[in-house]
Amino acid sequence: MYKKNIFTSWFKKNKRTGRKFMEKIKERALKLANKKIAFVGSVNENNVPNIKAMSVAKHHGLETFYFASSHSAIKTEHYKRNFNACIYFNDGPIYKELVLEGIMKIFNDIEMKKMAWKNDLKSAFKNGGIHDPDYCVLKFTAKKGHYHTEAFEID
Amino acid sequence: MYKKNIFTSWFKKNKRTGRKFMEKIKERALKLANKKIAFVGSVNENNVPNIKAMSVAKHHGLETFYFASSHSAIKTEHYKRNFNACIYFNDGPIYKELVLEGIMKIFNDIEMKKMAWKNDLKSAFKNGGIHDPDYCVLKFTAKKGHYHTEAFEID
Repeated sequence: MYKKNIFTSWFKKNKRTGRKFMEKIKERALKLANKKIAFVGSVNENNVPNIKAMSVAKHHGLETFYFASSHSAIKTEHYKRNFNACIYFNDGPIYKELVLEGIMKIFNDIEMKKMAWKNDLKSAFKNGGIHDPDYCVLKFTAKKGHYHTEAFEID
Repeated sequence: MYKKNIFTSWFKKNKRTGRKFMEKIKERALKLANKKIAFVGSVNENNVPNIKAMSVAKHHGLETFYFASSHSAIKTEHYKRNFNACIYFNDGPIYKELVLEGIMKIFNDIEMKKMAWKNDLKSAFKNGGIHDPDYCVLKFTAKKGHYHTEAFEID
């Protein structure tokens, strides 16, 4: 909110166009994307948004993010109907925030499950751990983003 | 996620049914709802979810929450098309989380604007402060909620 008016001193000092500016924006966005916890958004069957904090298992830059999840989770059910998703990161002041818009797909292949696995998931997947049929991996692929008030495309 | 398996020791010790249990859940939910920052969810024109951190200007229990906002904010535009909304709070461990589902309405009346106003909004609304035509108030009314894995209705 207040997108037209509130800028940090950094924003004031910098011209808001050009390749260098966008590089700087993405650099700042990437710092937030390196955080361990993301707020993950989905849309339910009644077109109502939902939010859940999730641990990021792995990510590649601003492009792809992986999350350990389960088929029985509410969020996974949402993505089965509507793969539209966003992930949000923030840090300290309210304007230090990044939202990435994209799609979330559900994967069951063992290589991805191994990649996203952590030992503290054992208590959640008692029916075979990494082989528990309820265990799945959510892969988020970003299309575009907003760092604070600045929009950018994902290459 | 992992809704079937991960519970805190408190959840383990308590029977998961009955009025007393639900009262305890709502009490814990209310503690989170008293936090100053909410993560607010909307759905855009392409059916994609969006998340934004917002300061809570005022709230009544788990039922209603007010936010200072602007007509030109992306989120406000979303709510003009689709008033479905959620607000999310968390605190520390990932399972200490509350999501409320409901509707978000946009208000322009001066009493509500006064109620939600704070002096640090001056820099955002230079065209008359509290009388700036871009300034508006978002009112969220909850219908139901989830505290961690426990669902409840709002009376």
